[in-house]
Amino acid sequence: MKIRCQKSDLLNSVNIVLKAVPTKTTMPILECLIIEANNYGIKLIANDMELGIETMVKGTIMEEGIVALNAKVFSEIVRRLPENEVYISVDENYTTEIICEKAKFAISGRSGDEFPSLQEVERENPLTLSQFTLKEVIRQTVFSISDNESNKIMTGELFDIKNNELRVISLDGHRISIRKIIMKEEYEERKVIIPGKTLNEISKILSGEVDSFVNIFFTDKHALFEFDDTLVVTRLIDGEYYRIDQMLSSDYETKVTINKKELLSCIERASLLIRENDKKPIIIRVSDNNFELNINTSLGSMKEDVDIVMEGKDIVIGFNPKFLMDALRVIDDETVDIYLINPKAPCFIRNKEQSYIYLILPVNINVGA
Amino acid sequence: MKIRCQKSDLLNSVNIVLKAVPTKTTMPILECLIIEANNYGIKLIANDMELGIETMVKGTIMEEGIVALNAKVFSEIVRRLPENEVYISVDENYTTEIICEKAKFAISGRSGDEFPSLQEVERENPLTLSQFTLKEVIRQTVFSISDNESNKIMTGELFDIKNNELRVISLDGHRISIRKIIMKEEYEERKVIIPGKTLNEISKILSGEVDSFVNIFFTDKHALFEFDDTLVVTRLIDGEYYRIDQMLSSDYETKVTINKKELLSCIERASLLIRENDKKPIIIRVSDNNFELNINTSLGSMKEDVDIVMEGKDIVIGFNPKFLMDALRVIDDETVDIYLINPKAPCFIRNKEQSYIYLILPVNINVGA
Repeated sequence: MKIRCQKSDLLNSVNIVLKAVPTKTTMPILECLIIEANNYGIKLIANDMELGIETMVKGTIMEEGIVALNAKVFSEIVRRLPENEVYISVDENYTTEIICEKAKFAISGRSGDEFPSLQEVERENPLTLSQFTLKEVIRQTVFSISDNESNKIMTGELFDIKNNELRVISLDGHRISIRKIIMKEEYEERKVIIPGKTLNEISKILSGEVDSFVNIFFTDKHALFEFDDTLVVTRLIDGEYYRIDQMLSSDYETKVTINKKELLSCIERASLLIRENDKKPIIIRVSDNNFELNINTSLGSMKEDVDIVMEGKDIVIGFNPKFLMDALRVIDDETVDIYLINPKAPCFIRNKEQSYIYLILPVNINVGA
Repeated sequence: MKIRCQKSDLLNSVNIVLKAVPTKTTMPILECLIIEANNYGIKLIANDMELGIETMVKGTIMEEGIVALNAKVFSEIVRRLPENEVYISVDENYTTEIICEKAKFAISGRSGDEFPSLQEVERENPLTLSQFTLKEVIRQTVFSISDNESNKIMTGELFDIKNNELRVISLDGHRISIRKIIMKEEYEERKVIIPGKTLNEISKILSGEVDSFVNIFFTDKHALFEFDDTLVVTRLIDGEYYRIDQMLSSDYETKVTINKKELLSCIERASLLIRENDKKPIIIRVSDNNFELNINTSLGSMKEDVDIVMEGKDIVIGFNPKFLMDALRVIDDETVDIYLINPKAPCFIRNKEQSYIYLILPVNINVGA
């Protein structure tokens, strides 16, 4: 193989496929990335068996071929090359020369034969979203997946497609995050569970532009994301997702309308008094159009009032402050509505259109205290 | 005690004294900072027994007093307060209320009685430098102190004052860094060894402005740095420093003049092929006005040429690339002169005025190879 390309193009593509190189693996070949030059162009490939990425590099092919190179070593070399044209040539023993200006590296490569190829996914009937929308919806929901591998389903997000509506849902046993997107077209009904790790990696690669698009293709076991010059293939998580609709309720006893930024800063300050592994809740007391937040830990106590508009009954309720902060940080509205029922029932943060719903379970507190 | 001050002023001062709060200590009182309000003003103090810092906070005193507060908790609270006036009041049990806008924290404090006061240093005959100069000279030398506590002297820097010249020197057994500063006044001869850790912390606090000054006072055992509204007291390291003048030589067999940035990038690229704990040297071959850098490790090999102007004999010599990079990174000149004698003798990077001298020992290589 003999190719040449610009350092910046090569580095961009290397950074994309790096997302699918596992940090720990029992299969050393997976620590490699593949460079393949043939009549389709120059392609980089990486695959950690759950997530696989292929992306094209602009460049010129002088001789076709394929090689597997240690991804970490190759990427660090490329990163430090001068900003100029890079020549890569591979000999019959897979020794790979990388030449840029006066720098000349030689590293040993291996044949790409052992490398597991990406799962083929038929490209028919894609779901199409803007890169911006997909990147945002991941950010707005992925924080509430569970990282406990013993419950595989909770480590993924449900993509629930029905007519022209996509709902993206995550939950971890303490909270549920739901974002609803209205699409331009109608789609076949479909529910798939996509690994959260994959979505995190995809969101890092997406440019996030409003006028670039992502096509998503599904099979029973896999999903393929196609955007720019990149293909990302991921396994889906097997099983049936939780029936969340029966957990959602529109009833409430108390409705609080509050400035989001003020509330978030106030909870952030309160959480300073919580040390790691300390499960102290914040206590919220809503009464007479006043919202009082209290916390009391071994480090000290804090009390702060926040202005609100309220509707309904007074209530005293406790929360894990992290769960409130996670939700508030991904809501872009200036004011939010919080719906409460009683100190043991979940609270809901949602807007009128229900384009977002964040359900958070309260923490038991001794209300008499 | 009752005081009020602006959050930003308080935070600045807290950040300064935090540098003297130890992360690990067997004396819990040292994890505190002191707030003292008396007729001199509002003062914050921290002390880790080697390094002590005092700084003033602008503000108003309604009631004098003193309290010791956990530095970590207090600083995190202050950091998150709204940008507004902060009221601090301490009751007779040292419970401390911190109030800013609607946020009201209460944390428990302790009496300042147990807290070790800073060593008194008589303020006579200071050495005066601009903040810029002191900050720069620390940056340009402190990287080559040793972190091996078994040889205490190597963990500090020699400040060698003679007439109107200050030389700052550090060494770690493999290299020596020397910076010479010409001062406006003549000073008494004096040699002191200042702990490298102290210098690192001071350099973080210094604003680095050319027209702000630092006064440095010395006793046999301590040095006091006075600048802005801050006093830093440090213990000195006991003992006699190495006689470095006899290690410096002006003789050379080969002189290489080279573009600093090109050389540095080239060594940085070569060092990519070195894994941690791998002691592979880079090999430099100087001949016929050509400078060829080679490295060969388990990860691969690299070769690169750099343009030079040379004088004297050809030479092949090996170096630990880190030592060359450390020195080159703190030299601001566009081109540097490197003086070489033979493959076993130290190399010198120095300018004509000898305002900097970096001595680096070579690594033994098999020159026949």
